[in-house]
Amino acid sequence: MTNPRTSLASLSDDDLAGFLAEQQAAYTDLQSRGLKLDLTRGKPSAAQLDLSNDLLHLPTTTKDRAGVDVRNYGGLEGLAELREIFAELLWVEPSQVIAGGNSSLTMMYSTIVDFLLFGGVDSPRPWGREEKVRFICPVPGYDRHFSMLASFGIEMVTVDMHEDGPDVAAVEALVKDDPSIKGIWIVPTYANPSGAVVSQEIAARLAAMPTAAPDFTIFWDNAYAFHHLTEDEAKSADIISLAAASGHPNRPIMFASTSKITFAGAGVAVLAASAANVAWYLKHLAMGSIGPDKVNHLRHVEFFRDADGVRAHMRKHREIIAPKFAAVDEALTSGLAGLEVAEWSHPTGGYFVNLDVLDGTASRVVALAKDAGIALTPAGASFPLGHDPRDRNIRLAPTFPVLEEVRTAMAGVATCVALAAAEKLTAERASRVGAEGGGSTLPAPNATNATTEGAPR
Amino acid sequence: MTNPRTSLASLSDDDLAGFLAEQQAAYTDLQSRGLKLDLTRGKPSAAQLDLSNDLLHLPTTTKDRAGVDVRNYGGLEGLAELREIFAELLWVEPSQVIAGGNSSLTMMYSTIVDFLLFGGVDSPRPWGREEKVRFICPVPGYDRHFSMLASFGIEMVTVDMHEDGPDVAAVEALVKDDPSIKGIWIVPTYANPSGAVVSQEIAARLAAMPTAAPDFTIFWDNAYAFHHLTEDEAKSADIISLAAASGHPNRPIMFASTSKITFAGAGVAVLAASAANVAWYLKHLAMGSIGPDKVNHLRHVEFFRDADGVRAHMRKHREIIAPKFAAVDEALTSGLAGLEVAEWSHPTGGYFVNLDVLDGTASRVVALAKDAGIALTPAGASFPLGHDPRDRNIRLAPTFPVLEEVRTAMAGVATCVALAAAEKLTAERASRVGAEGGGSTLPAPNATNATTEGAPR
Repeated sequence: MTNPRTSLASLSDDDLAGFLAEQQAAYTDLQSRGLKLDLTRGKPSAAQLDLSNDLLHLPTTTKDRAGVDVRNYGGLEGLAELREIFAELLWVEPSQVIAGGNSSLTMMYSTIVDFLLFGGVDSPRPWGREEKVRFICPVPGYDRHFSMLASFGIEMVTVDMHEDGPDVAAVEALVKDDPSIKGIWIVPTYANPSGAVVSQEIAARLAAMPTAAPDFTIFWDNAYAFHHLTEDEAKSADIISLAAASGHPNRPIMFASTSKITFAGAGVAVLAASAANVAWYLKHLAMGSIGPDKVNHLRHVEFFRDADGVRAHMRKHREIIAPKFAAVDEALTSGLAGLEVAEWSHPTGGYFVNLDVLDGTASRVVALAKDAGIALTPAGASFPLGHDPRDRNIRLAPTFPVLEEVRTAMAGVATCVALAAAEKLTAERASRVGAEGGGSTLPAPNATNATTEGAPR
Repeated sequence: MTNPRTSLASLSDDDLAGFLAEQQAAYTDLQSRGLKLDLTRGKPSAAQLDLSNDLLHLPTTTKDRAGVDVRNYGGLEGLAELREIFAELLWVEPSQVIAGGNSSLTMMYSTIVDFLLFGGVDSPRPWGREEKVRFICPVPGYDRHFSMLASFGIEMVTVDMHEDGPDVAAVEALVKDDPSIKGIWIVPTYANPSGAVVSQEIAARLAAMPTAAPDFTIFWDNAYAFHHLTEDEAKSADIISLAAASGHPNRPIMFASTSKITFAGAGVAVLAASAANVAWYLKHLAMGSIGPDKVNHLRHVEFFRDADGVRAHMRKHREIIAPKFAAVDEALTSGLAGLEVAEWSHPTGGYFVNLDVLDGTASRVVALAKDAGIALTPAGASFPLGHDPRDRNIRLAPTFPVLEEVRTAMAGVATCVALAAAEKLTAERASRVGAEGGGSTLPAPNATNATTEGAPR
């Protein structure tokens, strides 16, 4: 495929027709290759999982450092040694950390269940007794956050996710007068999918802003806190201290896990929060648990030894996955640079590349890719109820396939993006020609489509 | 201590005074020994946990038999191989089994949360929207079942637990006309704490009985299904088939786990139910989970190999714990036989001995034991809200201490039971003497206190 390196919208009708034909040919070729590649989910690759295979032979002992048998019941808050490691990594006190099962998503779910059934520390009543409960959802965001809320019948109000965090002015305006706004999802470090990192300033405003709901809660899903792709390691804002300093100690609840550090399905998750929130969570947890899998906790403690062990381990992940992110960028640049039909993120951490294509073509791109054997996350997945109002957002997850497959898949994705854009521009011109009875005036590029690819977002 | 081997109530005043003095001396001696023993919880001992230490080096592979990497996300319903083992053990189809995390209590909790927030397959509305929700609680029963319900604000109605299951006529009468009765807890095999096994006939009546609530649910907590103490292995009634045959396929939901098979804190739990209930549970589970710890599932599959592996493993547990149950019986028999102040169960499986002491003395016995360094489960724990209306029930859990400690502790418990009984009878006579202005008529033994120790219950 030839990339003319010029805005597709600026091409003459003939050149656009030529480009379209070229893309169609490239796509037919792509289809004929019988690919079966998957960029749908943020899953670690086998090589990444192999980094933690020592876990399969651990722990070497059955007692924690206090002499308690980890094989038995008990220890609802999790193994002290593990809580200390996470406390250091997340800049909180060990007493503020609860180590749980294999999924931080489960801890988030439990937390919302507790709010619904019992109410939180600062709740006037259980959320389930409120007329209406609404959450602010920065978009694009994590699909499972949204589907969880939808399952609870919690309404979602979107705000834009910027390079430095959610549109905080919009958030402040929403929470100020409306007591039905009870929470916000935030992935503060290398956000899913944009890669954005919430700045200290934005975090401080979120911690301090007046809210009509006394129990407004920031669900601070720090899933990628340690998941750096470059030497320039982002530091998560210390939301718990910021909130405490602002007089809202119970506002944030932080979640993290080793799902993308050790084994995705067999890691350990943690929750960190104020002392009051920790006591509240444990009180309800005690009704349905006789303690977490402390053997797995000890397994992880022996594996990591300490917080530096986690950091060192993450550098090994980086060696494996950074080239895949580079391959995504190379393929998109090679196929799409200059066409002004797409922009994409250049994350310095996390698990995703956020690809925005020409408005109205994301669904088509995903369908084209699917028919060529390349599975992408459904268009719109990063929006509540799966609805991207501009139909332009695609989340790319390059970690799971091997490098060569990422290259192959992304070259194919670039073809699909270019083809869908060419199709759309061609159709638009045809409809205008029809509407205007002929004529050759090119439409000005739509401002919202004007893209400068390459800029980090 | 001398055991007169005759009903304490039938002793003359002088003999009773002599007996009381003897028990007081024995108790003083007990206190002076500085014991620190714990019979509170049904926890496996270190020797039992050691039986499963091979788990610490498993699994030897990272793929399931379908070639799927168990280390990664996915497989919400659990590892197929593990589900098959439990399906055979619980007489259901593998598709009816969900393998979860380390705790069946957590699966019970999640199930009730789903009923509260969403309603079940046959629910007209979520339980949280009902005026009132009530559960039938056979007593004595499992304290965590009751505290869970209390935390949800679910009212508890008690029925008696008999040797062959709950008082089914009472249950039938309760559910027939009252749609607020939504569920019943049943530990069908070697019940906690009575050791009762629900008979096929009782199970069939529970499965078939008309209920006013269309979504009346039997929480069939088969925690001790394979936990035999004798060659006479109880077979749990097949409640799921019985309910399906009676036209109430969704009525029972069964729970089990390896908590008292492998590691108490690091085992695997399962739920088994109708296809519709399984789909319902998974639908909600999917909102808060990306799959269970399949590494631990595979670890257990490699360890057991098959259902017979589980059965063989349970025989090793029996070798360790059956002598402890025998020691309980020996100590109680030696100290209390003939006194007619206590009766206790002779379980053929499970984890508990149910001790009923003279009405109104259970709290005193537990307090006396505590002051002598022997921790017992709080009196009343086996009743909703911790309230035993007759203050006579004590749950003994002999598995955790080593055998010699069980002997020591139980001899002490016998002393406490005898002392509390003697105190009570003495006080009763004194108050009658006071009320009647003297006289030596012995009160007839209270019918509800008349006990024939030694009969299994």
